[in-house]
Amino acid sequence: MPSVPEMRATVDKYLALVATGTAEEITALYADGATLEDPVGAEPLVGKEAILAFYKVIEPIKRSTELISFKAGGDTAVFQFKIVTAFDALTVEISPVDIMIFDEAGAVTSMRAVWSQDEMIMS
Amino acid sequence: MPSVPEMRATVDKYLALVATGTAEEITALYADGATLEDPVGAEPLVGKEAILAFYKVIEPIKRSTELISFKAGGDTAVFQFKIVTAFDALTVEISPVDIMIFDEAGAVTSMRAVWSQDEMIMS
Repeated sequence: MPSVPEMRATVDKYLALVATGTAEEITALYADGATLEDPVGAEPLVGKEAILAFYKVIEPIKRSTELISFKAGGDTAVFQFKIVTAFDALTVEISPVDIMIFDEAGAVTSMRAVWSQDEMIMS
Repeated sequence: MPSVPEMRATVDKYLALVATGTAEEITALYADGATLEDPVGAEPLVGKEAILAFYKVIEPIKRSTELISFKAGGDTAVFQFKIVTAFDALTVEISPVDIMIFDEAGAVTSMRAVWSQDEMIMS
Protein backbone atom coordinates (compact mmCIF):
# COMPACT_ATOMS: atom_id res chain seq x y z
CA MET A 1 0.00 0.00 0.00
CA PRO A 2 1.38 3.49 -0.75
CA SER A 3 2.32 5.55 2.29
CA VAL A 4 0.43 8.75 3.16
CA PRO A 5 3.39 10.92 1.93
CA GLU A 6 3.42 8.95 -1.34
CA MET A 7 -0.31 9.56 -1.83
CA ARG A 8 0.20 13.23 -0.97
CA ALA A 9 3.00 13.51 -3.57
CA THR A 10 0.75 12.00 -6.25
CA VAL A 11 -2.12 14.34 -5.35
CA ASP A 12 0.24 17.35 -5.51
CA LYS A 13 1.50 16.14 -8.90
CA TYR A 14 -2.06 15.54 -10.08
CA LEU A 15 -3.15 19.09 -9.22
CA ALA A 16 -0.03 20.57 -10.83
CA LEU A 17 -0.70 18.58 -14.00
CA VAL A 18 -4.42 19.41 -14.02
CA ALA A 19 -3.32 23.06 -14.00
CA THR A 20 -0.48 22.95 -16.52
CA GLY A 21 0.13 19.41 -17.78
CA THR A 22 -1.02 17.44 -20.80
CA ALA A 23 -3.84 14.89 -20.78
CA GLU A 24 -1.21 12.18 -21.35
CA GLU A 25 0.77 13.26 -18.26
CA ILE A 26 -2.35 13.24 -16.09
CA THR A 27 -3.50 9.86 -17.44
CA ALA A 28 -0.08 8.37 -16.64
CA LEU A 29 -0.96 8.67 -12.93
CA TYR A 30 -3.80 6.16 -13.43
CA ALA A 31 -3.55 2.35 -13.42
CA ASP A 32 -4.74 0.26 -16.36
CA GLY A 33 -8.46 -0.36 -16.00
CA ALA A 34 -8.87 2.57 -13.60
CA THR A 35 -12.27 4.21 -13.22
CA LEU A 36 -13.10 7.92 -13.16
CA GLU A 37 -16.47 9.31 -11.99
CA ASP A 38 -16.62 13.11 -12.27
CA PRO A 39 -18.97 14.34 -10.97
CA VAL A 40 -20.15 11.48 -8.71
CA GLY A 41 -23.42 10.19 -10.10
CA ALA A 42 -22.19 10.38 -13.70
CA GLU A 43 -21.53 7.13 -15.58
CA PRO A 44 -18.00 6.07 -14.57
CA LEU A 45 -15.35 6.12 -17.31
CA VAL A 46 -13.34 2.89 -17.44
CA GLY A 47 -9.79 2.50 -18.71
CA LYS A 48 -6.98 4.79 -19.77
CA GLU A 49 -8.39 5.59 -23.21
CA ALA A 50 -11.62 6.98 -21.75
CA ILE A 51 -9.68 8.79 -19.01
CA LEU A 52 -7.34 10.37 -21.57
CA ALA A 53 -10.34 11.63 -23.58
CA PHE A 54 -11.78 13.16 -20.38
CA TYR A 55 -8.62 15.19 -19.68
CA LYS A 56 -8.20 16.10 -23.36
CA VAL A 57 -11.34 18.26 -22.99
CA ILE A 58 -9.77 20.52 -20.37
CA GLU A 59 -6.29 20.56 -21.93
CA PRO A 60 -6.84 23.64 -24.16
CA ILE A 61 -8.59 25.63 -21.40
CA LYS A 62 -6.65 28.05 -19.20
CA ARG A 63 -6.91 26.81 -15.63
CA SER A 64 -5.36 26.89 -12.17
CA THR A 65 -5.67 24.64 -9.12
CA GLU A 66 -5.10 25.03 -5.40
CA LEU A 67 -5.20 22.34 -2.70
CA ILE A 68 -7.59 23.20 0.14
CA SER A 69 -7.42 20.09 2.33
CA PHE A 70 -5.92 16.61 2.26
CA LYS A 71 -6.45 13.45 4.29
CA ALA A 72 -5.27 9.93 3.56
CA GLY A 73 -5.04 6.49 5.10
CA GLY A 74 -4.96 2.88 3.91
CA ASP A 75 -5.24 2.97 0.10
CA THR A 76 -7.35 6.14 -0.04
CA ALA A 77 -6.81 9.90 -0.22
CA VAL A 78 -9.58 12.49 0.09
CA PHE A 79 -8.76 16.04 -0.86
CA GLN A 80 -10.57 19.26 -1.66
CA PHE A 81 -9.18 21.69 -4.18
CA LYS A 82 -10.21 24.81 -6.01
CA ILE A 83 -10.06 24.80 -9.79
CA VAL A 84 -10.51 28.00 -11.74
CA THR A 85 -11.04 27.78 -15.49
CA ALA A 86 -11.08 30.81 -17.76
CA PHE A 87 -13.13 30.97 -20.96
CA ASP A 88 -12.34 34.35 -22.51
CA ALA A 89 -14.04 36.85 -20.18
CA LEU A 90 -15.83 34.16 -18.13
CA THR A 91 -14.19 32.56 -15.09
CA VAL A 92 -15.68 29.42 -13.54
CA GLU A 93 -14.62 28.22 -10.10
CA ILE A 94 -15.48 24.94 -8.38
CA SER A 95 -14.11 23.23 -5.27
CA PRO A 96 -14.58 19.47 -5.64
CA VAL A 97 -13.69 16.86 -3.05
CA ASP A 98 -11.88 14.05 -4.86
CA ILE A 99 -11.69 10.51 -3.52
CA MET A 100 -8.67 8.65 -4.95
CA ILE A 101 -7.89 4.98 -4.38
CA PHE A 102 -4.40 3.69 -5.12
CA ASP A 103 -2.94 0.29 -5.97
CA GLU A 104 0.19 -1.26 -4.43
CA ALA A 105 2.39 0.55 -6.98
CA GLY A 106 0.85 3.93 -6.11
CA ALA A 107 -1.15 4.30 -9.34
CA VAL A 108 -4.70 5.64 -9.13
CA THR A 109 -7.30 2.89 -9.60
CA SER A 110 -10.37 5.02 -8.86
CA MET A 111 -11.14 8.72 -8.81
CA ARG A 112 -14.56 10.04 -7.81
CA ALA A 113 -15.11 13.81 -7.71
CA VAL A 114 -17.79 15.00 -5.29
CA TRP A 115 -19.32 18.29 -6.48
CA SER A 116 -22.44 19.49 -8.25
CA GLN A 117 -23.08 21.97 -11.04
CA ASP A 118 -25.02 24.31 -8.75
CA GLU A 119 -21.80 24.99 -6.81
CA MET A 120 -20.14 26.66 -9.79
CA ILE A 121 -19.08 30.24 -9.11
CA MET A 122 -19.06 32.30 -12.31
CA SER A 123 -17.51 35.72 -12.61
CA MET B 1 -30.69 8.38 -5.51
CA PRO B 2 -31.00 10.37 -2.26
CA SER B 3 -30.80 14.14 -2.64
CA VAL B 4 -27.94 16.14 -1.16
CA PRO B 5 -30.22 17.47 1.66
CA GLU B 6 -31.32 13.89 2.41
CA MET B 7 -27.70 12.74 2.66
CA ARG B 8 -26.93 15.76 4.84
CA ALA B 9 -29.84 14.90 7.17
CA THR B 10 -28.56 11.33 7.54
CA VAL B 11 -25.02 12.54 8.26
CA ASP B 12 -26.34 14.98 10.90
CA LYS B 13 -28.37 12.16 12.44
CA TYR B 14 -25.36 9.83 12.30
CA LEU B 15 -23.14 12.28 14.17
CA ALA B 16 -25.84 12.98 16.76
CA LEU B 17 -26.26 9.22 17.33
CA VAL B 18 -22.51 8.57 17.43
CA ALA B 19 -22.44 11.15 20.24
CA THR B 20 -25.50 10.12 22.25
CA GLY B 21 -27.32 7.22 20.57
CA THR B 22 -27.28 3.47 21.00
CA ALA B 23 -25.40 1.07 18.72
CA GLU B 24 -28.79 -0.20 17.49
CA GLU B 25 -29.89 3.32 16.50
CA ILE B 26 -26.65 3.94 14.60
CA THR B 27 -26.79 0.55 12.87
CA ALA B 28 -30.36 1.28 11.71
CA LEU B 29 -28.91 3.90 9.33
CA TYR B 30 -27.09 1.12 7.44
CA ALA B 31 -28.48 -1.10 4.68
CA ASP B 32 -28.42 -4.90 4.94
CA GLY B 33 -25.05 -6.15 3.73
CA ALA B 34 -23.44 -2.75 4.22
CA THR B 35 -19.68 -2.53 4.69
CA LEU B 36 -17.74 -0.49 7.25
CA GLU B 37 -13.99 0.18 7.02
CA ASP B 38 -12.71 2.24 9.97
CA PRO B 39 -9.95 3.25 9.65
CA VAL B 40 -9.40 2.77 5.89
CA GLY B 41 -6.92 -0.01 5.40
CA ALA B 42 -8.50 -2.16 8.12
CA GLU B 43 -10.39 -5.30 7.10
CA PRO B 44 -13.91 -4.13 6.14
CA LEU B 45 -16.75 -5.29 8.37
CA VAL B 46 -19.66 -6.74 6.40
CA GLY B 47 -23.32 -6.80 7.44
CA LYS B 48 -25.40 -5.32 10.22
CA GLU B 49 -24.31 -7.77 12.90
CA ALA B 50 -20.63 -6.85 12.49
CA ILE B 51 -21.52 -3.15 12.27
CA LEU B 52 -23.60 -3.36 15.46
CA ALA B 53 -20.67 -4.97 17.29
CA PHE B 54 -18.39 -2.14 16.08
CA TYR B 55 -20.65 0.58 17.53
CA LYS B 56 -21.28 -1.44 20.73
CA VAL B 57 -17.62 -0.81 21.61
CA ILE B 58 -18.04 2.97 21.73
CA GLU B 59 -21.52 2.90 23.31
CA PRO B 60 -20.37 3.00 26.95
CA ILE B 61 -17.73 5.69 26.31
CA LYS B 62 -18.52 9.35 26.89
CA ARG B 63 -18.14 11.13 23.56
CA SER B 64 -19.08 14.19 21.53
CA THR B 65 -19.04 14.95 17.81
CA GLU B 66 -18.95 18.09 15.69
CA LEU B 67 -19.30 18.39 11.91
CA ILE B 68 -16.38 20.25 10.31
CA SER B 69 -17.17 20.02 6.59
CA PHE B 70 -19.69 18.31 4.29
CA LYS B 71 -19.86 17.72 0.56
CA ALA B 72 -22.16 15.40 -1.36
CA GLY B 73 -23.22 14.50 -4.86
CA GLY B 74 -24.55 11.46 -6.70
CA ASP B 75 -24.82 8.64 -4.13
CA THR B 76 -21.87 9.82 -2.02
CA ALA B 77 -21.25 12.13 0.93
CA VAL B 78 -17.80 13.08 2.23
CA PHE B 79 -17.62 14.80 5.60
CA GLN B 80 -15.04 15.62 8.22
CA PHE B 81 -15.96 15.68 11.87
CA LYS B 82 -14.29 15.93 15.23
CA ILE B 83 -14.95 13.21 17.77
CA VAL B 84 -13.82 13.60 21.35
CA THR B 85 -13.90 10.57 23.61
CA ALA B 86 -13.27 10.72 27.32
CA PHE B 87 -11.76 7.86 29.32
CA ASP B 88 -11.68 9.04 32.94
CA ALA B 89 -8.98 11.74 32.96
CA LEU B 90 -7.82 11.05 29.39
CA THR B 91 -9.44 12.79 26.39
CA VAL B 92 -8.78 11.55 22.87
CA GLU B 93 -9.67 13.66 19.84
CA ILE B 94 -9.61 12.64 16.18
CA SER B 95 -11.00 14.31 13.04
CA PRO B 96 -11.75 11.60 10.47
CA VAL B 97 -13.03 12.19 6.95
CA ASP B 98 -15.85 9.71 6.36
CA ILE B 99 -16.93 8.59 2.90
CA MET B 100 -20.54 7.35 2.92
CA ILE B 101 -22.31 5.76 -0.03
CA PHE B 102 -26.11 5.52 0.01
CA ASP B 103 -28.65 3.27 -1.71
CA GLU B 104 -31.86 4.42 -3.43
CA ALA B 105 -33.72 4.34 -0.12
CA GLY B 106 -31.13 6.55 1.57
CA ALA B 107 -29.58 3.79 3.72
CA VAL B 108 -25.79 3.67 4.06
CA THR B 109 -24.25 0.84 2.01
CA SER B 110 -20.60 1.75 2.63
CA MET B 111 -18.74 3.81 5.20
CA ARG B 112 -14.97 4.29 5.02
CA ALA B 113 -13.28 6.48 7.64
CA VAL B 114 -10.06 8.15 6.51
CA TRP B 115 -7.76 8.81 9.49
CA SER B 116 -4.72 7.29 11.13
CA GLN B 117 -3.73 6.56 14.71
CA ASP B 118 -0.86 9.07 14.63
CA GLU B 119 -3.41 11.88 14.27
CA MET B 120 -4.88 11.24 17.73
CA ILE B 121 -4.69 14.23 20.02
CA MET B 122 -4.55 13.18 23.67
CA SER B 123 -5.00 15.53 26.56
